[in-house]
Amino acid sequence: MDFSLFFVGTAGSIPTARRGLPAVLLRRGGDRILFDCGEGTQRQLVSSVGLTELTEVFLTHFHADHWLGLPGLLKTFDLRARERPLAIYAPPGLRELLTTALRAAGRVRFELDMVELEPGDVLERDGYRIAPVPVNHRGPAFGYVIYEDERPGQFDPHEAVRLGLTHGPEFGRVQRGETVRGVRPEQVMGPPRPGRKVVISGDTAPCETVRIAAHRSDVLIHEATFAQDERDRAAETFHSTAAQAAALAREAEVTMLALTHFSTRHPVALLRDEARAIFRGTVLPRDFDTIEIPFPERGEPQLVRWGEGRGLDVEDGAAASEPLRGPTS
Amino acid sequence: MDFSLFFVGTAGSIPTARRGLPAVLLRRGGDRILFDCGEGTQRQLVSSVGLTELTEVFLTHFHADHWLGLPGLLKTFDLRARERPLAIYAPPGLRELLTTALRAAGRVRFELDMVELEPGDVLERDGYRIAPVPVNHRGPAFGYVIYEDERPGQFDPHEAVRLGLTHGPEFGRVQRGETVRGVRPEQVMGPPRPGRKVVISGDTAPCETVRIAAHRSDVLIHEATFAQDERDRAAETFHSTAAQAAALAREAEVTMLALTHFSTRHPVALLRDEARAIFRGTVLPRDFDTIEIPFPERGEPQLVRWGEGRGLDVEDGAAASEPLRGPTS
Repeated sequence: MDFSLFFVGTAGSIPTARRGLPAVLLRRGGDRILFDCGEGTQRQLVSSVGLTELTEVFLTHFHADHWLGLPGLLKTFDLRARERPLAIYAPPGLRELLTTALRAAGRVRFELDMVELEPGDVLERDGYRIAPVPVNHRGPAFGYVIYEDERPGQFDPHEAVRLGLTHGPEFGRVQRGETVRGVRPEQVMGPPRPGRKVVISGDTAPCETVRIAAHRSDVLIHEATFAQDERDRAAETFHSTAAQAAALAREAEVTMLALTHFSTRHPVALLRDEARAIFRGTVLPRDFDTIEIPFPERGEPQLVRWGEGRGLDVEDGAAASEPLRGPTS
Repeated sequence: MDFSLFFVGTAGSIPTARRGLPAVLLRRGGDRILFDCGEGTQRQLVSSVGLTELTEVFLTHFHADHWLGLPGLLKTFDLRARERPLAIYAPPGLRELLTTALRAAGRVRFELDMVELEPGDVLERDGYRIAPVPVNHRGPAFGYVIYEDERPGQFDPHEAVRLGLTHGPEFGRVQRGETVRGVRPEQVMGPPRPGRKVVISGDTAPCETVRIAAHRSDVLIHEATFAQDERDRAAETFHSTAAQAAALAREAEVTMLALTHFSTRHPVALLRDEARAIFRGTVLPRDFDTIEIPFPERGEPQLVRWGEGRGLDVEDGAAASEPLRGPTS
């Protein structure tokens, strides 16, 4: 089952020529889930993976840079005659906000299901769950944890044969949990294997809830609005420095930390260096980059630069200088 | 005095990779006036001429694709500590719309002056005027005419000498309207010369008010949402075809017609061919192109492609195929 994160926009607060406002598209099998929807998200999608028919949308909080693209996206779905209902999840306040915004922008004809989440809620999906994580930002604000169901343990065919089972249907039955000719599943199956886990911090000061939620996650997407020389300003505004995000990732023993929500105040290369000095597994996606997340036994998460494999020449070390590239700015 | 039109976004309804939603920046001397502000306008500006401190903003109407970029733009001005008040002009309904939108997006700290215009209003500026033109679209909708004051006639130094005046201060005094040694200004000055005139149609079916307002204008920016094979659909939706815009431009004897508000339904090359068959002076700007408008005695309006003179290789005939170019998509 494919599982990946597509970075639709990686700027914070104000867009730049190269970075759009916050949005991340999670793709798992056929599901397409958008986390945040900054102004311009619809055009970022049109310019990259296409204006995919989203399964659902989650907002982390209600600061303008994280949701102002939603009314336009909904209007465009409407123009394109979307019929399928769309669920939008966010902290309390969503209904008032979106109702007000759509009073100005105009209604849409498909059904909108606006769901205000509470800490402790867990949304069950086919093979995975999504849960809000209260974070430390001005106003109601969530991060989100997305975690797959446990998978059955690894089957040991040699042990099965040793215990007297034969290749074929017997192998299938015991793997599905049946006791076959006295052989119990736990005798030939390893321990259940954890599913994959991703945590998205949203905007937040470094916080314990994210650290706990992110424990041993495959990917933590954490905001990094400031460099370390502005850590006071980060604290005042309830944001994080890249170094703080890295320290949290190290404590949480995550496999990969993806920094985002970059400000124009700091060169991305500085944030990278400050974070990697603390946690080596830090990546700094650009718009349209993807993180592919294989099952752990098949390898670690990989940052795939936009344009790689498409004949464009993109260097891995180029994140710092941010050369002109690809079909968007 | 410089006078130009910068095309911030030239798509209609839905943005594409290459075209943002509607916005035109009029530049005259130090004035920077934005007409419409589709979603993504702030990023289009950041990606091209910079996020200039706008003098004022005019909206043609309240369909979502024409104004959804305004709340984000205002929030960004606020983040950048704008102090100067900003006036926003639009048809009646502006105050309710923008108040509602800012209730959702959050307030700004600089003063917003929301002005609902009525047909017949004329805003006097330093050396020019701006007036709304009622047009034929769903809901209240204006085009705008921007026209400079008349300039004094051309001074004829030979005639002045013949009538007995001498080079120097006497020339200046008679040109400023003074009778000098019995010589009256009208004896040595040609007739007053018209200022430059630009008309922006906004979204509209072809309409008489625009035709009259655009009479002998230097540039008419007219929407061209449809090709001629969809003229019925254009009429139903109160839009225009490229050919209708061209016919109107020909009747109005404009110097240059700039088509915009392109839909993805039709290749731009088709719209170009249909319009030029009727009115040769038709141009089809791409995002970030500029129309420079000199005083008529110095030449005709010129479409300057983005990147021209910047070392990028852009062909004039390339409008049709729309090759990848420039710093934005």
